[in-house]
Amino acid sequence: METVLIHNISDYLDKEVKLRGWVRNVRSSGKLIFIIIRDGSGELQAIAFKPDLNEETFNKAKSLTLESSLEITGIPKKHPKKQDVFELAVTDIKIIQIAAEYPISKKEHGTDFLLTHRHLWLRSSKQWALMRIRHTVYYAICDFLNNNGFYRFDSPILTPNACEGTTTLFEVPYFDEGTAYLSQSGQLYLENGIMSLGRVYDFGPVFRAEKSKSRKHLTEFWMMDAEAAFVEHNESMQIQEELIRFVLRKVIKDNLADLNILERDVELLRKADAPFKVITHKQAIDLLRDKGINIGYEDDFGAEEETMLTRDLDVPLFIEKWPKSIKAFYMKRDPKDRNLVLGSDLMAPRGFGELIGGSQREDDYHLLKQRMIDEKLPMAQYQWYLDLRLYGSVPHSGFGIGLERLIGWLSGVKHIRETIPFPRMIYRIYP
Amino acid sequence: METVLIHNISDYLDKEVKLRGWVRNVRSSGKLIFIIIRDGSGELQAIAFKPDLNEETFNKAKSLTLESSLEITGIPKKHPKKQDVFELAVTDIKIIQIAAEYPISKKEHGTDFLLTHRHLWLRSSKQWALMRIRHTVYYAICDFLNNNGFYRFDSPILTPNACEGTTTLFEVPYFDEGTAYLSQSGQLYLENGIMSLGRVYDFGPVFRAEKSKSRKHLTEFWMMDAEAAFVEHNESMQIQEELIRFVLRKVIKDNLADLNILERDVELLRKADAPFKVITHKQAIDLLRDKGINIGYEDDFGAEEETMLTRDLDVPLFIEKWPKSIKAFYMKRDPKDRNLVLGSDLMAPRGFGELIGGSQREDDYHLLKQRMIDEKLPMAQYQWYLDLRLYGSVPHSGFGIGLERLIGWLSGVKHIRETIPFPRMIYRIYP
Repeated sequence: METVLIHNISDYLDKEVKLRGWVRNVRSSGKLIFIIIRDGSGELQAIAFKPDLNEETFNKAKSLTLESSLEITGIPKKHPKKQDVFELAVTDIKIIQIAAEYPISKKEHGTDFLLTHRHLWLRSSKQWALMRIRHTVYYAICDFLNNNGFYRFDSPILTPNACEGTTTLFEVPYFDEGTAYLSQSGQLYLENGIMSLGRVYDFGPVFRAEKSKSRKHLTEFWMMDAEAAFVEHNESMQIQEELIRFVLRKVIKDNLADLNILERDVELLRKADAPFKVITHKQAIDLLRDKGINIGYEDDFGAEEETMLTRDLDVPLFIEKWPKSIKAFYMKRDPKDRNLVLGSDLMAPRGFGELIGGSQREDDYHLLKQRMIDEKLPMAQYQWYLDLRLYGSVPHSGFGIGLERLIGWLSGVKHIRETIPFPRMIYRIYP
Repeated sequence: METVLIHNISDYLDKEVKLRGWVRNVRSSGKLIFIIIRDGSGELQAIAFKPDLNEETFNKAKSLTLESSLEITGIPKKHPKKQDVFELAVTDIKIIQIAAEYPISKKEHGTDFLLTHRHLWLRSSKQWALMRIRHTVYYAICDFLNNNGFYRFDSPILTPNACEGTTTLFEVPYFDEGTAYLSQSGQLYLENGIMSLGRVYDFGPVFRAEKSKSRKHLTEFWMMDAEAAFVEHNESMQIQEELIRFVLRKVIKDNLADLNILERDVELLRKADAPFKVITHKQAIDLLRDKGINIGYEDDFGAEEETMLTRDLDVPLFIEKWPKSIKAFYMKRDPKDRNLVLGSDLMAPRGFGELIGGSQREDDYHLLKQRMIDEKLPMAQYQWYLDLRLYGSVPHSGFGIGLERLIGWLSGVKHIRETIPFPRMIYRIYP
């Protein structure tokens, strides 16, 4: 007899098979015991019918508790009414372990309780669906990049300097070398990688010691940074749009059942699969001022403004050409307006917030050096980065995607702490 | 005119195309200037022939220095003598930047010099080849696991406790929560993931604050940990063997040119694609004692003993069933011998050292708890891990692969610091 996975069960109709897994739920009704089994690949209702079983087997079925582990033998049948749903007519049960009383029940639990029991909470349907979507999104991003000539190029976590400013760095005592800092972005390293490999990306954990408790902040999260030689601002935005579209289609194709478990409005996702909208930062400010917001042409957007700009949109929105004063030192100046940089932020529709930040990079040694001096960066530690502009500098662009925020938009969950197996926040480092 | 990548050049024979890249080398001989161009995808000799060019273009070719960046237009031709080699008959040149005098030359450089100039060293042929192999190995591991029902499940880097002992941990001050530690392995978290997803793996950076300067040690390296429910010791070794074989074949197929750049003996790699050898720890000790080594039955192997066991082998070697006293607390006891655990180490042939460590895990709550008490672990911090044995415990096994060591074996490089873009060692955190 074959041991099979639930997601393959339709291949074994009317043949006796063995499943291995855990009890999601159990209820009895006279001569019938209904056992919901999950095995990591899916879930299925098994029915133990007393007249078909010996007494010992039926008693085993009766003794099952939530999350007990077992091997269950039976015959897969089509559900009498529901299409594409299958049931198992139980023929035998082998109990592996009767679980102790399970702490997570159907009643509402507080956030703190669930986070403290994250190791168990992950078994619930919605968390399981989110982890499956995470898997798809991760590899959809990798596949797109691999298909477009990018090489994986892992940037280091322990770094001697900071990319995004020094107030939110985690510090690590490092032997006799003093202090290392946990990476906030691999970008500077990737700009190096393109000089060897042409197009590169990394995709790993990054860290922000931010004392923010918003639903969009984690202290440890996963980031994909991509960088490409000979790619300029407009082509970079085009690559970003194609990448997001590729991921969107892949998730709708592979994870429709998971999106349904999460009650995501899939029609809204499908509507996002159309040409993205592009406006300049100045146009965005004008739109907000028309709506009565008091905001200046050199201001950044807060969460409220971001929501106003995208809440009525069906498609993602690029905001490009930002004032130099509010963007990072490495962004290339717009040759048409010295006060602007060739950077863009991509915002998800319907107020879900930022998905991507990107820019063309300054490739002129002297302009970049002056920007760094103006920003009072420790120049000795950045000499290697400046070197890249001395030895065969080329026009190049790159962008970064926060994995959890992208999953947040696709899945529709409100708090990104649910999109990562073990979230780390300012008051949360266990388990 | 099309802009093309060098690795596609054979599709454009006798059609004028544009390439963009850097000058690997340049030499002139009378009316001929030979320019080796690299563009990340490959390298190619371009030939500027004075009679075919206007004076300005020929002078541009003459002015090129090592690592200068350029666009070069020309007509791809077959090499007159060498098969599968192509050349470019130059028709035009656009210089992007004449590089400053390049610090890395053909002469031998010391290790410290090369590591300080890692951002430039990565452009050299061998380093470029190693990064391409790294890309292949990373995704070959992922593909194998994805094809075998494993979900990616990213374990956290910032952790409240240690998996492999507490003497080699990097510490990170963490807000009001005290100290966090950089992860040494995601295994304990993965054991949790299987209870939701059945089979899981992570693949990210891990950290060891080891004061070792051996050629096999990095303080930051990439590790894949896999874990599978309902998989026992022997099946786990079978999965490991299939995985290594899958990666080996993929690298030989996709990276033969890179292996040749590295002067790897590919025939030796091909010989490793045969059934792996399996011996017990006791048999390994007997072999060593037969060779005159003074070693006891509860001893671990040093580098010298590892080399003796594998230097004459063509295939990888599993050493299984280790004494409990020298292996981690979480390994399952061998039911046939209470002093042994169901663990295995996989050693590369020809003295290349360990590739994989794995074991079946202890799934009995009371036995595991006693082992943890015996090892004086802080029990409160591990309660979540013990919980997994209370709520539907199942037999399960897992294993871990150090990415850099695997690349070391496949590529044949002596020091694994060359297998990662920016190696971190006890005296090295820059650039």
